[in-house]
Amino acid sequence: MTGTEHGSSPQAVTAAPRPVTRLIDELCRLPGIGPKTASRLAYYLLRSPAEQVLSLAESLRVVKERTVLCSVCFNIAERSPCSICGSAERDVTQVCVVEEPLDVLAVERTRLYHGLYHVLHGAISPVEGIGPEELKIRELVSRVQTGQVREVLLATNPNLEGEATAMYVARQLAPLGIRVTRLARGLPIGGDLEYADEVTLGQALEGRREF
Amino acid sequence: MTGTEHGSSPQAVTAAPRPVTRLIDELCRLPGIGPKTASRLAYYLLRSPAEQVLSLAESLRVVKERTVLCSVCFNIAERSPCSICGSAERDVTQVCVVEEPLDVLAVERTRLYHGLYHVLHGAISPVEGIGPEELKIRELVSRVQTGQVREVLLATNPNLEGEATAMYVARQLAPLGIRVTRLARGLPIGGDLEYADEVTLGQALEGRREF
Repeated sequence: MTGTEHGSSPQAVTAAPRPVTRLIDELCRLPGIGPKTASRLAYYLLRSPAEQVLSLAESLRVVKERTVLCSVCFNIAERSPCSICGSAERDVTQVCVVEEPLDVLAVERTRLYHGLYHVLHGAISPVEGIGPEELKIRELVSRVQTGQVREVLLATNPNLEGEATAMYVARQLAPLGIRVTRLARGLPIGGDLEYADEVTLGQALEGRREF
Repeated sequence: MTGTEHGSSPQAVTAAPRPVTRLIDELCRLPGIGPKTASRLAYYLLRSPAEQVLSLAESLRVVKERTVLCSVCFNIAERSPCSICGSAERDVTQVCVVEEPLDVLAVERTRLYHGLYHVLHGAISPVEGIGPEELKIRELVSRVQTGQVREVLLATNPNLEGEATAMYVARQLAPLGIRVTRLARGLPIGGDLEYADEVTLGQALEGRREF
């Protein structure tokens, strides 16, 4: 050790190179990624082949450019209407209402549902200041009014916000005289739809009851 | 439910749009990121403002382009020699040997070390097929032979591979007649004696100092 051990040198601490700190900062903005994980990821990428890093960068660049919201169901898709809304093989009399696009994938994985979807893009949450008008609820109601829908299956998350959203949507649909169902109990309360295993979610689909 | 409930329809399962699945695949290649986390990150990015996503993509693109390995210490830097090797304020008689660039940042954060560094880029690991010739050990030896180095501080990780690497490097440096030291072993600050493992506690005992 030198004589200037206690930080008397103004430039004692050297940070990572600026391009690296910038990448760490960007990674830190992602959910569930703190500064330590971001550093590890950044230095992992620095050790990786350039093609891998550029390929990831390119995926990020095109992911928003080459995706749209389906104008019918509001799922993220390559074109509008999406492949589900445009399919001749889906049952157009059923609409499954979910909070997020990931929930569509979860329901699809059960292979038990062959109707259409409607993505609300969130749930009613007074705490986060999300009211019904922030969600695609009005669009759902007019879709049901004008279409051939005979059943709306409410598949919001089995938590406070999801239940409140389901209740609100059910009330909006009540005057239209269609069947309104929801996923059966069997999903753990406080859980998250996207983490449910296929069997549980499949059983919840089959056991759905009148709202 | 329709009559084709048990997967008889060949296109029953719809995956995410291709740009999204590509991004998920790319994210899955990162350490500590599995398919679920990758999906969540991808859909988070789809919901994020385009500028944030493009900014992350750009950071990835430039991070390798605008960084080099310092030709002296092999740390990742914006130019070679790096800001530490090129600084007039650092003690050129001391070289701290670390496994990875992140370790340089860790030592710098202590604000107690003002010498130079040498990044080995790994540790000797027969299991992973990493021998001494894969690391920057030869470069360290010739650096010590030709430079003004009087002390080499071995700061490899306190695990099997790090210890083996330190031992190997120490043996290579022995004929050069310089001081070779290593980081003290002992109890981590803020730790709890009853949770310390036997090896750490044993080394803390052996390395005990006057109060």
